[in-house]
Amino acid sequence: MPCSIVPREPGARTSAERVGAVPGETELIDRYFRLLGAVRGDVALGIGDDAAVLQVPDGHELVQTTDALVPGAHFLADDQPGSIGHRLVAANLSDLAAMGAQPAWALLSLTMPGVDEPWLAAFARGLGLLARAQGVALVGGNLARGPLNASLTLSGLVPRGQALRRDGGRPGDDLWVSGFPGEARAGMALRHPQLRAAALPGADGLDAGARAALVARWEYPDARTALGVALRGLASAAIDVSDGLWVDLGRLAQASGCAALLEEESLPVSVALRAAAGPGAWLELLAGGEDYELCLAAAPARAAAIQAAAAATCTPLARIGRLVAGTGVQLLRAGAVTQFSAPGFDHFGT
Amino acid sequence: MPCSIVPREPGARTSAERVGAVPGETELIDRYFRLLGAVRGDVALGIGDDAAVLQVPDGHELVQTTDALVPGAHFLADDQPGSIGHRLVAANLSDLAAMGAQPAWALLSLTMPGVDEPWLAAFARGLGLLARAQGVALVGGNLARGPLNASLTLSGLVPRGQALRRDGGRPGDDLWVSGFPGEARAGMALRHPQLRAAALPGADGLDAGARAALVARWEYPDARTALGVALRGLASAAIDVSDGLWVDLGRLAQASGCAALLEEESLPVSVALRAAAGPGAWLELLAGGEDYELCLAAAPARAAAIQAAAAATCTPLARIGRLVAGTGVQLLRAGAVTQFSAPGFDHFGT
Repeated sequence: MPCSIVPREPGARTSAERVGAVPGETELIDRYFRLLGAVRGDVALGIGDDAAVLQVPDGHELVQTTDALVPGAHFLADDQPGSIGHRLVAANLSDLAAMGAQPAWALLSLTMPGVDEPWLAAFARGLGLLARAQGVALVGGNLARGPLNASLTLSGLVPRGQALRRDGGRPGDDLWVSGFPGEARAGMALRHPQLRAAALPGADGLDAGARAALVARWEYPDARTALGVALRGLASAAIDVSDGLWVDLGRLAQASGCAALLEEESLPVSVALRAAAGPGAWLELLAGGEDYELCLAAAPARAAAIQAAAAATCTPLARIGRLVAGTGVQLLRAGAVTQFSAPGFDHFGT
Repeated sequence: MPCSIVPREPGARTSAERVGAVPGETELIDRYFRLLGAVRGDVALGIGDDAAVLQVPDGHELVQTTDALVPGAHFLADDQPGSIGHRLVAANLSDLAAMGAQPAWALLSLTMPGVDEPWLAAFARGLGLLARAQGVALVGGNLARGPLNASLTLSGLVPRGQALRRDGGRPGDDLWVSGFPGEARAGMALRHPQLRAAALPGADGLDAGARAALVARWEYPDARTALGVALRGLASAAIDVSDGLWVDLGRLAQASGCAALLEEESLPVSVALRAAAGPGAWLELLAGGEDYELCLAAAPARAAAIQAAAAATCTPLARIGRLVAGTGVQLLRAGAVTQFSAPGFDHFGT
């Protein structure tokens, strides 16, 4: 060794000295993240170079989003690492679904206070299983030491000009929502009762199946990729409701220059959700967020095609109201229209 | 207001109540990050929808990388926020330069403990100035509350099949390096003497210009984008040396199935670097990392074209050795070959 190299971190050793010790960044990437997710023929170069090289088919546009999960804000220390990895992928998938994009490639930026291999293995498994199920290859990333923080960037593809946007809605369009928003919030409240995340007067009377179903909606949510793709050319506008139905629907309405008129009786509520929340409280859960469901607008003439798209992709979908002239979100309740104003999730609003 | 919504965070208020209070996530994005960087005609949809929509020209491949900056590991609390924003972009630009890609679009994931608008404004300015200078549009991102963590994903473009890789080097190829690796490490040591990041016996005798030049190499490094693009079709392999010349050159050699033979007398050392480190110590600085320089291999027949590419892009470039049969990194010093083994930067190696 011709010279002593100043280590970047106290105690850094050479590869030879590292045998049997804590694995380094490269080893951890090899062990847990290389070849994670789907195998795709359009990955010309994946993990292992300075950057990934990816083949975008001619005639397609690239759709990109990024989302992070941070302890305290998005999960608790005792959450299952597999659930954290799953939800990191689901949050990004949901954004692409709302654009009608087919997901393809992901990059992970993970910061951890130290090497906890069982945690890493379970996190990578949760991330990889959902990625593989949705055809997403992990093509790059970054591991660093610091407070726990997991950020994923997801890229997808859409035929040129066919991406769904928030701003295409017109007065008279029907409004639709997939799944049962509020279930994730109820599941979070059941999983972490100490958070008092929601009033669930029916929680104690829930049977084990309903409880497990709701908790699973929080821990292992679906994303509506297939529905989003099927809505290309049908929906006039789309958004995901991960910040809560009221807030995200308000964003769609605002971007489209309309007001949203919701019919309370049309809002979808699952049996489990109604049992947990009781008749008076479930509406509150709709603001909870973390539901990776799609809300969309479409001309009434498209209603049958929209329903066929939902059926073809096995997605529950309910017509919940319509876009009208005006601004904001209005609720039609027992024949009366109420201007609705409610916060969804905002990291910094006080 | 038809129902009281359970807030996602204690103290969350409605938009109306938020007037004059701490701005929310959406306001912060509007204020500091919308329209940051270059204006590009290929951004069909930028910040403000569920995801960005980007137009990849036919016949091109997408090149993607992600890098994060974490306090403690990459910067200190008293570092200038503008420098942190700049370096976050530079670290990613350097990865794309090593692939010969032209950078295009970035997504930012930023986690902060709270709203510090002067910090945010300066961070965004540093990020935006370098992004704009290099033709990069910020097209999306994510803001969350938590320990400070800044992660950027950068996408670029390269004509199909022309990306530079690590694994194309062959025995007999010349090795080249841009700039003056070690300057960033010296600059870091000068900027943060309490870290004892490097032995700089000449530090006290440095004139103000040399000191400022070295500190700037740490705080506001260049990235070798133009050189990387000019090397398409010329270099057989390329890598950036952000983890230190020894480690990254070792990676290039390993991927290419060769050994790297460096000539000590050919290694480039700037006047400022030699003055700061003294004749015996500057070699150690080469392992420091954070130098966003390129190391490349090329057939000897390409030497004149390589030098012309460097001249055309105003990039200092030195021939520092060659690839030979074998493994590892060897140093030719005073006529003798020494097997070289030294750690670079590894977040988790112990």
